[in-house]
Amino acid sequence: MTVSDLSNRDCLPCKGEGETLADAGARMAGLHPNWRLDGTRILRRFTFKGFARAVQMANLAAWLGDKLGHHPDVGFGWGWCEVAFTSHELGGLTENDFIAAARLDAIVD
Amino acid sequence: MTVSDLSNRDCLPCKGEGETLADAGARMAGLHPNWRLDGTRILRRFTFKGFARAVQMANLAAWLGDKLGHHPDVGFGWGWCEVAFTSHELGGLTENDFIAAARLDAIVD
Repeated sequence: MTVSDLSNRDCLPCKGEGETLADAGARMAGLHPNWRLDGTRILRRFTFKGFARAVQMANLAAWLGDKLGHHPDVGFGWGWCEVAFTSHELGGLTENDFIAAARLDAIVD
Repeated sequence: MTVSDLSNRDCLPCKGEGETLADAGARMAGLHPNWRLDGTRILRRFTFKGFARAVQMANLAAWLGDKLGHHPDVGFGWGWCEVAFTSHELGGLTENDFIAAARLDAIVD
């Protein structure tokens, strides 16, 4: 499945997702290279000059997560914003996380 | 100095702040009890039902930090938001961090 395939898809209800992925590492190749595995999450760090764009990125990620019904964990400060996806209910990564990440990439890149 | 004193003050330019505080632990007593020392930062965790209010709190903290010229590190996700202040330029806590925290308390509580 390519990035463009994922970025056209909606997240499934978490209860319906079934199980966590065994091939999360391989799936990273489908995302922007700034995504990395961070424990049971996938995380992308953005860097900016100043504060305002970091806040804007945090809100963009929040908006997307709300739209998808799959909410990120977001951190931001002066010059940076980090967006992380995981499937909290299942304690690991599901296809939903990769869909949400690909959707963010499709907006940002 | 009381909380209300601090919450009426503006942050000083970081370069002018001079040095980090030796009595940071004692100063915690002047803040809302949910503030805690977290390494070289002070951090307050807020919990909410759902996502929207967490996003709103993140933006409130961002707005305050921009107003004060003393920017927080903020994290948020479903049901939670954490706001942290530190004086990055000095590698520790200064009075600015306690002023900013007291100002946030004055808005929120």
